[in-house]
Amino acid sequence: MSILVVGSVAFDSIETPFGKVDNVLGGSAVYFSTSASFFTDVNLVAVIGEDFPQEHIDFLSSRNIDLRGLARDSGKTFHWQGRYGYDLNEAQTLATHLNVFETFKPRIPESYADSDYLFLANIDPDLQMEVLSQVDSPKIVASDTMNYWISSKPESLRNVVKNVDILIVNDAEARQFSQEPNLVKAARKLLDIGVKTLIVKRGEYGVLMFTRSSIFSAPAYPLEEVFDPTGAGDTFAGGFMGYLANTGDTSDEGVRRAIIFGSVMASFTVEDFSLNRLKKLNYNEIVERYRSLKAMTHFEGLPEMGSPL
Amino acid sequence: MSILVVGSVAFDSIETPFGKVDNVLGGSAVYFSTSASFFTDVNLVAVIGEDFPQEHIDFLSSRNIDLRGLARDSGKTFHWQGRYGYDLNEAQTLATHLNVFETFKPRIPESYADSDYLFLANIDPDLQMEVLSQVDSPKIVASDTMNYWISSKPESLRNVVKNVDILIVNDAEARQFSQEPNLVKAARKLLDIGVKTLIVKRGEYGVLMFTRSSIFSAPAYPLEEVFDPTGAGDTFAGGFMGYLANTGDTSDEGVRRAIIFGSVMASFTVEDFSLNRLKKLNYNEIVERYRSLKAMTHFEGLPEMGSPL
Repeated sequence: MSILVVGSVAFDSIETPFGKVDNVLGGSAVYFSTSASFFTDVNLVAVIGEDFPQEHIDFLSSRNIDLRGLARDSGKTFHWQGRYGYDLNEAQTLATHLNVFETFKPRIPESYADSDYLFLANIDPDLQMEVLSQVDSPKIVASDTMNYWISSKPESLRNVVKNVDILIVNDAEARQFSQEPNLVKAARKLLDIGVKTLIVKRGEYGVLMFTRSSIFSAPAYPLEEVFDPTGAGDTFAGGFMGYLANTGDTSDEGVRRAIIFGSVMASFTVEDFSLNRLKKLNYNEIVERYRSLKAMTHFEGLPEMGSPL
Repeated sequence: MSILVVGSVAFDSIETPFGKVDNVLGGSAVYFSTSASFFTDVNLVAVIGEDFPQEHIDFLSSRNIDLRGLARDSGKTFHWQGRYGYDLNEAQTLATHLNVFETFKPRIPESYADSDYLFLANIDPDLQMEVLSQVDSPKIVASDTMNYWISSKPESLRNVVKNVDILIVNDAEARQFSQEPNLVKAARKLLDIGVKTLIVKRGEYGVLMFTRSSIFSAPAYPLEEVFDPTGAGDTFAGGFMGYLANTGDTSDEGVRRAIIFGSVMASFTVEDFSLNRLKKLNYNEIVERYRSLKAMTHFEGLPEMGSPL
């Protein structure tokens, strides 16, 4: 089944301790849809400016990403400039030029309205609600957000998270949104305000999923080279939703597997700038890392009865 | 089989965002042996001053910890004063009064010399080597260390880690010792200088174990209340070595289980100051958390053949 993603297409200028690039392809919708495209068909809704080159459009098309929802407005494409120090878990934003993204009003093509899987990437929560109203009856909706919306539109955001199935945020966002420094308590508070499934991304420390009935803890794939973490979160979401859409298995087991696939996809993205690693990726490499994560986390349970000692 | 631990017995004065205590029972050998005592018999080698009260000796004895190796010297007991902010992963040392610990020369009672399991807690690496030479032919030796010895006695430390089976350190120590910021590369470097099994403690993010042939990633038990992290690392080591000594199973599977038991024990220690939580702990609670961690980390593997999608 196909996925609809609504988010950003961007040019990124990035500095890490390992290198520097200018105006490379980025944006939440790009990372998400490229990652998801390894698992299923993707419909993309976003906006680009007049300066967006055919080369990038060709790349997205080559991944079988449907671009009928990609609008081109007069003006420049969204541009983000950031820097990472040796602590690659935290980006420092040097400049944000919203450009055409500032007046982005997502319009969902009619042919996308029956999408079963919907990902609302980090945009204004009021726009996220508008998108939600344009999609008929999706099976699973997941949403992301960021510190800016948590502080500037908390009411709108609360409305969104009540109306989606899965909230995917990083640990700092979970703490900020709940106003609670302890992550387990933060998760409980977010479940209390109506979040059904909470997925917390913790960078190199992996992912935690919280529901009313269980916690799932997934490690990140341990990497020798982390080159640029930009896009890791959206790549995670793409692998996660892509796997769900592919299998239609939304049981607890299915969602856990989807989280592992998301983590695997993110582990590739961070190995190079922009989409460079995903462009070279093949499906066997994905399966291999999935199996490695399975082997890395395995330990035996205790016998059901009697003393194990 | 019994374990021998050589380390410190201390008074701790600690401030966390949640409270403050003065001169409470602490020290690596105390946390280690109390934790290990849930699994096996423990022989303790350490030094105390004239001010060490009978009450604490009675407590350790009540846990069946053999204290024939606990020397009493003239002077005061080792005293550590520290503070934690909301980031409970990092302690700020306010004062260290070594007192009788400054001239500590561990003397291993003859009855301990045939110990099969030996834990060299964080002391001068030259003393760790001396202890090692006094124990006949231990089955498993694990050692800990700290930033102070890594910078002041790197050669002695390298000698120790080559001569033990397992090095247990935290992530900052692994990075410092290897002079490598990436943890996977750091682990590889430490294996290259002769470490056989490396266990890296990452506080609330769990534990990684590295050997030449595999990586094991274990989560920390997610807690709603982390009150005071002091002693968590030594409690981990105590549960880990205690389980190994109890079962004698040093296969990869056995060591992985031992790591989970270590993590479970540490999760209790941090729920209260000093040994307060361990004093109230019972074995059923340990088993329950082990099972929770098993359920929290479980996900299905992929079929061996064919496409999983």
